[in-house]
Amino acid sequence: KKKHKIAILSGDGIGPEIMQEAYKIIEILKKKFNLPIETSEYDVGGIAIDKHNNALPENTLNGCKNSDSILFGAVGGDKWNHMPIEKRPEIAGLLNLRKKFNLFANIRPCNLNKKLHYLSPLKSEISKKGFNLICIRELTGGIYFGKSKYDQKKKYAYDTEIYSEYEIQRIAKIAFQIAQKRTKKLVSIDKANVLKSSALWRSVVDKMSKDYSDIQLTHMYIDNATMELIKKPFTFDTVLCSNLFGDILSDECAALSGSIGMLPSASINEYNFGLYEPAGGSAPNITGKNIANPIAQILSLSMLVNYSMNLPNIASLIEESVSETLYNNNLTLDLVQKNKNYISTSEMGNKISEQL
Amino acid sequence: KKKHKIAILSGDGIGPEIMQEAYKIIEILKKKFNLPIETSEYDVGGIAIDKHNNALPENTLNGCKNSDSILFGAVGGDKWNHMPIEKRPEIAGLLNLRKKFNLFANIRPCNLNKKLHYLSPLKSEISKKGFNLICIRELTGGIYFGKSKYDQKKKYAYDTEIYSEYEIQRIAKIAFQIAQKRTKKLVSIDKANVLKSSALWRSVVDKMSKDYSDIQLTHMYIDNATMELIKKPFTFDTVLCSNLFGDILSDECAALSGSIGMLPSASINEYNFGLYEPAGGSAPNITGKNIANPIAQILSLSMLVNYSMNLPNIASLIEESVSETLYNNNLTLDLVQKNKNYISTSEMGNKISEQL
Ligand SMILES: CC(C)[C@H](C(=O)O)[C@@H](O)C(=O)O
Ligand SMILES: CC(C)[C@H](C(=O)O)[C@@H](O)C(=O)O
Repeated sequence: KKKHKIAILSGDGIGPEIMQEAYKIIEILKKKFNLPIETSEYDVGGIAIDKHNNALPENTLNGCKNSDSILFGAVGGDKWNHMPIEKRPEIAGLLNLRKKFNLFANIRPCNLNKKLHYLSPLKSEISKKGFNLICIRELTGGIYFGKSKYDQKKKYAYDTEIYSEYEIQRIAKIAFQIAQKRTKKLVSIDKANVLKSSALWRSVVDKMSKDYSDIQLTHMYIDNATMELIKKPFTFDTVLCSNLFGDILSDECAALSGSIGMLPSASINEYNFGLYEPAGGSAPNITGKNIANPIAQILSLSMLVNYSMNLPNIASLIEESVSETLYNNNLTLDLVQKNKNYISTSEMGNKISEQL
Repeated sequence: KKKHKIAILSGDGIGPEIMQEAYKIIEILKKKFNLPIETSEYDVGGIAIDKHNNALPENTLNGCKNSDSILFGAVGGDKWNHMPIEKRPEIAGLLNLRKKFNLFANIRPCNLNKKLHYLSPLKSEISKKGFNLICIRELTGGIYFGKSKYDQKKKYAYDTEIYSEYEIQRIAKIAFQIAQKRTKKLVSIDKANVLKSSALWRSVVDKMSKDYSDIQLTHMYIDNATMELIKKPFTFDTVLCSNLFGDILSDECAALSGSIGMLPSASINEYNFGLYEPAGGSAPNITGKNIANPIAQILSLSMLVNYSMNLPNIASLIEESVSETLYNNNLTLDLVQKNKNYISTSEMGNKISEQL
């Protein structure tokens, strides 16, 4: 069997702690499921700056190139916030990896489990319906990478939101395909009443929808989507966004679910190479206390198994183990109601492992 | 006494109905408070397209030019959605007026009254604290008006998010001044970890803060702000945004308050000329039923009295009349809990008038 090489980039803050729990699952995948996984660790982010003066050292980049996928923890922290932006862990580390590996499709499932509906900041009338949506965000184009300038002398600055038909097609294709495996409801987000890039976005997605006649496609303006998500999150299924709108909306969804510690993400390219990481950040305030929720990291691994190893059934088993563990009322600090008992990061990892 | 001329642009949908109630307040301002107000009506939006084939007819534009302020209702509706974007009521009518009169400062107060906390989609743990914030949105710059192109042949399109130091300074100045009259907490929203226009925005606002040493200024990334607003809306006071981020965040705030029918807005230029309009839209689904909430329109009038007539005390009286009316449990359909009694649009106007 061909080996599947995973580059493990734990990074900063809670990254290493929650990665430890993902390792437990990897061990099970290797030993019980006989998956030919091989892991190697590399420095990224703040720790890489401290050790090698570079958030994405040559050695890390090469390690990733020689791997089949990347399991990423989290990067960043106050310690590195004085640095020029382009050298900081988030930009030099994360944005760079996205661009270098052409990881144009960011996939972020976001669920609110009915049984855990109290986690949501929404009132129970809304939250008790739960929700189950998935954001598909374009990740290597748009205003993040368009032409930009900061003119010190003339005292102006600009950034360019630019999309080609091709870029829109390839991300929309992924969204249509994912919608087909779900409830077949796709909503594409734009600001086509003002932006020309959005008008193009809308027309390309519309044209493509003819090839996906089973999909019920709608369009929504970003400002309206921001409101509808709050009022009726349960009406959304697959949500397609540009890079900037996806940055905003996927975080809004995370806040509405109230469980950012459980949300994984996948950033993939056309060869199914992917970077898999928790949606939350490095959470310096809870670092080293053994209280962080490792579920986002474990579900990121399950997305890796699904998208980069192409083993959806085994991915589902991991997901079910997580759900079962939660149903059995094994909850980390972020998930319990006031004054209720909770389990530690490592206990959560153990429980999910046992379940699996 | 010099006359204050108000151009009344009721527009489409519920616009004319709710404007009717604002007229009642205007009558009181004229008769009881002896304010030298003069009103003239002009067509705008869909109705102007129907009558004059132009969402902003020459006659309306001239009428506005000869006035001291504009009281605006709402524009748009399905009937005109087949038209090319740039001819539609929202763009040819509203965006055009903003640009023509250089209305660079959009001011949108957004409150959740503790007594009406059940209106909010947030759970009562959060909503019972109420909130009281004000969004200051730049309205004539940024990606709404930067260079843009839709290249049919080469199949790409772009829009430019561009800001000059001067544009940032003039909107930030308004935000600092408004914060000074409130709790002195100002948060400026940007995406300075990615966008150069945001880096400029942040540095200009930072520099200005030295002249406002009484103001506690913080910066927040747009994605983080989207989450924090949901989790802790009560921690926000004055919120400063670019055009695009303000479009998104102010609508998010509106959704969180649960009472879009009560939110006014002011769009002003440096000569205190302003366009005052409800934050909600033309609401075709409830048009003509005498159930729309006229409070947003009445509070828009009170913002006009405050900013364009420079009579903050009288503006406060109107606001207090609205609050009193609500406290006395006079509520329109959008404000009542299930199966409770409600009053009509015109009754609400009458109650507020009596109170005043
Ligand atoms: C850190 C930042 C550059 C990044 C982004 O905006 O893409 C983050 O917010 C994310 O969503 O992964
Ligand atoms: C109709 C649209 C162009 C407008 C905007 O985006 O500014 C609206 O959403 C608003 O906020 O007033």
